[in-house]
This record gives sequence, C-alpha cells and structure tokens, in this order.
Amino acid sequence: MAKPLDILVVGSTALDSVETGAGAVNEVLGGSAFYFSAAASFFAPVGLVGVVGGDFPLEELDFLERRGVDLEGLEVVSGGKTFRWGGKYHANMNDRDTLFTHLNVFEDFQPRIPETRRNSRMLFLANIQPRLQLDVLNQMREPEVVVTDTMNLWIRTAPEELRQVIARTDILIVNDEESEMITGLRNHLAAARSLLRVGPGVVIVKKGEHGALMVGRRVLFHAPAMPLEEVVDPTGAGDTFAGGFVGSLALDGLSDEDSLRRAVVRGTALASFCVQDFSVSRLARLTRGEIDGRVKALRELTEFGTG
Amino acid sequence: MAKPLDILVVGSTALDSVETGAGAVNEVLGGSAFYFSAAASFFAPVGLVGVVGGDFPLEELDFLERRGVDLEGLEVVSGGKTFRWGGKYHANMNDRDTLFTHLNVFEDFQPRIPETRRNSRMLFLANIQPRLQLDVLNQMREPEVVVTDTMNLWIRTAPEELRQVIARTDILIVNDEESEMITGLRNHLAAARSLLRVGPGVVIVKKGEHGALMVGRRVLFHAPAMPLEEVVDPTGAGDTFAGGFVGSLALDGLSDEDSLRRAVVRGTALASFCVQDFSVSRLARLTRGEIDGRVKALRELTEFGTG
Repeated sequence: MAKPLDILVVGSTALDSVETGAGAVNEVLGGSAFYFSAAASFFAPVGLVGVVGGDFPLEELDFLERRGVDLEGLEVVSGGKTFRWGGKYHANMNDRDTLFTHLNVFEDFQPRIPETRRNSRMLFLANIQPRLQLDVLNQMREPEVVVTDTMNLWIRTAPEELRQVIARTDILIVNDEESEMITGLRNHLAAARSLLRVGPGVVIVKKGEHGALMVGRRVLFHAPAMPLEEVVDPTGAGDTFAGGFVGSLALDGLSDEDSLRRAVVRGTALASFCVQDFSVSRLARLTRGEIDGRVKALRELTEFGTG
Repeated sequence: MAKPLDILVVGSTALDSVETGAGAVNEVLGGSAFYFSAAASFFAPVGLVGVVGGDFPLEELDFLERRGVDLEGLEVVSGGKTFRWGGKYHANMNDRDTLFTHLNVFEDFQPRIPETRRNSRMLFLANIQPRLQLDVLNQMREPEVVVTDTMNLWIRTAPEELRQVIARTDILIVNDEESEMITGLRNHLAAARSLLRVGPGVVIVKKGEHGALMVGRRVLFHAPAMPLEEVVDPTGAGDTFAGGFVGSLALDGLSDEDSLRRAVVRGTALASFCVQDFSVSRLARLTRGEIDGRVKALRELTEFGTG
C-alpha cells in the first residue's frame, strides 16, 4: 500500500464558548483547523497553519501531536489574545445565535507556510478570507489536490476573490445555503453543476442532518448523515467532515471514484462522532476501529438489493 | 415466483388545479388514491375505493384499468360534484398555498368495500378522516399488512381516533412534519421509535427532497430522493412513494428485510418520476423498465466500498 499523501490545513484556531440544549462549555478548543486536523490525522500526516495568542493552552493540543499533527505552522503571538467565539444553539440544533466574535490575533492573521510544508501534496483551505486563501495558494509549490471551504460572509463581501479561489480549487466543499448564495440556485444538483463550471472537478454540498451530495463530471453520490437520537453540539461538524474526507483521500489516493465515495462516507462518520460531544472531545478519544465501525453502519443504513 | 398479494387502497379522488414555477394545470387527476394506484399497479393488482361526482371524466382512468386497477369500489354520485383542490407552490417547491378546497361529494364519503375486496391481503389507508380509516379496518376480513398515511389536519383534530388507527397499523408512513406533530419530537429517529411503541412494526419518515428514513425494531434504512435538476409539480409524490412501496412489498413478500429496503427504493424511484410532470401524467406513460433503471441509478447514487 502506498504512503498516504501529506496534508496542509490553513484555518481558524480558536477558543469557543458554546451553549446547546445538552449543556454548555467555556473556552474550549474550536476553529476549523483544529476540527479538521483531529479528523484527518486518523488517515494521513497533517500540518497545521494558524495563529493563537499567548493565552492559548497549548497542552490541549497534545492529542493532536500524539496523532502526528505537525504544529510548526501554528504561530503563537505571545502578547496577543486568541480568537474567541461564543454561540448558542436553538432547540432544533440547526439554527444558532452568535453571542460574540472576538477576532483578536486572528484579525491580522497572515498565513506563513513553513518551508517544509510548501511541498504538501494536499491542501485544505478552511473557511478564511479568500484573499488569504489566494495568498496560501501562491506560497505552495504545486499541491496535487486543493480542497476549499468558505462561508456566507465571504460570499457576500468578497465574491470576486472567492471566485478566483474556486477557479483554482479541485474539490469545493460548501453547505446547501452557501451553494445557493453563490449560484442563486436553490436546487442542490443544479447549483453544484453550476459551480463545476467555475473550475472544480468535484463539488460537495453538505446538508447537515440530511447528509452530503457529491457531484462531479462523472460522479454523483449521496451519503445520509448517521441518524442519531441525540446531538450534543453541532459545532465543527462541517470541518470534521472535511477532515475525514481529505484524510481518507490522502490515504486511498485519488485515482478512482471509489476513493471519493469512501472519503465522503468517512467524513460523514467522523462528523457523526463530532456532534456527540462538545468541542473536539469525542474526536480526541476516538479510535480508528470506531470510525470503521460507523462506516459499516452507514453501509448497512444505505444498502439494498435490486432483487 | 409467488403471485403478488392484492392491494386495496381507500383514499381521496379529486380534480386538482395546480400552479408551479414550471406552469399550471386545471382540473387534472388528483387525490391520494389515484396517485397510489398509478404507482402500485406496476407491481401488483390494486382495488380502489373512493368517490367522485357525475362530472368526473371517467375516461381519464383508462390507463389505470389497462394496468389492472379494479375500479368497482369507485362510487360515482351522479348528482354530485367531484372533490376539487387548488394550490400554488412557492419557488422552493416545498411550500404551497391552498387556493381552494371544495370537498363536494368527498364531504360525505362513506367508504364501502366491495365484497370481493374485503379479503385483500394488503390494505393502504391513504390520508382520510381517522374515523373512516377505522371504519375501513372494520369492514376488512383480515389483511396481512395494513399501511397507513395521515396528515396534519387529523393529527390536530382527531388525535385519539388517529392513535387507534396507528395501533392497528403494521407500517406507518408519515412525513417529517407529521412525525414531529404526533410525537413532539423533532429528531426523526427518536420520533419514529416513539411511534413504534404505539403499534406499528415499521415507521417510514418521508423527508421530501431529503429522502426517506425507515425505522423498525430490527431495521434502519435511509434512501435519498433522486437528485433532479428540475421539478415540475411535487403534488402526489408522497402517495406515489406509498404506492411504489406497498406495490413492491406485495410483489416481493414481507418475509425479509431486503424486501422492505427494496420497497422504499422503488417508492423513491416512482416518486421521482411523479414530480417530473403535472398530475399523474408521467406515471401514466411510465414503464417498468424505466422504474428499474431509476432503482439502478439510486443504487449507483448510494453505493460505496469500505476499502
């Protein structure tokens, strides 16, 4: 079996305070880059680029380091404060109110890719300013696969730069609301096909509790979310999905459609664990065996004979 | 191969006037019993019980008779007018406004099951007054499988009678909104499990464009809706799903879980054709080969290797 490709992730690194119907937590690990790394590191080596303040509890990243995540690219601004986000979920666990966003050192984040990481063969551009995403793309030598995420804020405020990022993206991951905002098309399939015309070879539309739809020129695949009776905290599920997806692709290679399908399912499995506890808690104590077990459960959930 | 079980459906038979983003139609075939029969008749013999007025264009049912649907139980009230419903869909094709509901002869509908049909081995109780559903149950000898649908109106106005119907139901088909209304649980899995405790062995939660979840004591299955770039008219999709589901079960028998899974997929396939034209138009010109082709497409949409 070939060695997995190495992955670089550039994204937010934060301390979150979250309240849901299941409880509340204060100043716990948050941000796209941590969720992504926690998931992707089950399958492939990951390097992380982000920024935190001198107040950040670095020891909380021990579990990532034990899983082989390279934190050389995590800049620590000793005199600064870490990005903090606070949110409260509605009873339906889909809608949430942001209580506060203190960008702190993240406001001036200028991603600097360590020399050793510029050769990374897979790049995940988590949801940050599209101008910064372009800047990261320009620092890289020639990644074989660029996977990109974004959010409603950038779709509204930086549509032209975002378009340039998408044009240089191989696999675009958006949620249903974002795919509609970018294309004006509510129909997920039509929106995904419209996004394919901007550049990516594959578009994944995440639909939260309704699963994910993957659309490429030759592939059409749907994975349901794992049905769970209880969700503790949905924060980070999308980034965890992306981590499982990119990690799985790094492990299996990109040569066949089957790798893409399995990557979506592994991302789905990881995301289903993520929401079963606050922050990255469930991901931190997760095992590869549990992931494989949930992949099997997702297969049982979806398979049928044609008679 | 064993002979398919015969099916009896009791439901509404109407003339619909519908407006969607794709166009408008006036006084076309509508009502749960017609959609159900058009779908189920691909797989098994169907008897229909309903009521229309003397103004009903009976020749429009020729395609059902050619497909072997027994219309002996369709009462024609010569001096009365047929049930008419008018609706207009919003751009998202999920929400709709009812423009008018003229119950006419349907207001005094008293289902009378023809003597020859009281032995039917499968019974589909489409969405009608729970009191009438109970009345139908009492007229039947001993159907092997009772499949029941309902709607928000009866959940609000006749919850106790509805509960009695559900207690005598083997397979309950509800949509996501209805499952929440009955149980108070928004989580589909929790709602389905709560409904199982009322009596049914299997509960199917229809989620429209997001597919269907089937929950039983030993089965958990999810089928996505077929992704379609264009939907012409969603009217009747739920009843068409039920028709494909019950018809498939009648054909394959109920002995194994695989029959149940395949039935959900065939229902999904039929529903995806239903929405591609107004009224029962697409179902009327559909072939069994096209259904099998879409079942295959649904398999390609969902299958993956675990590596």
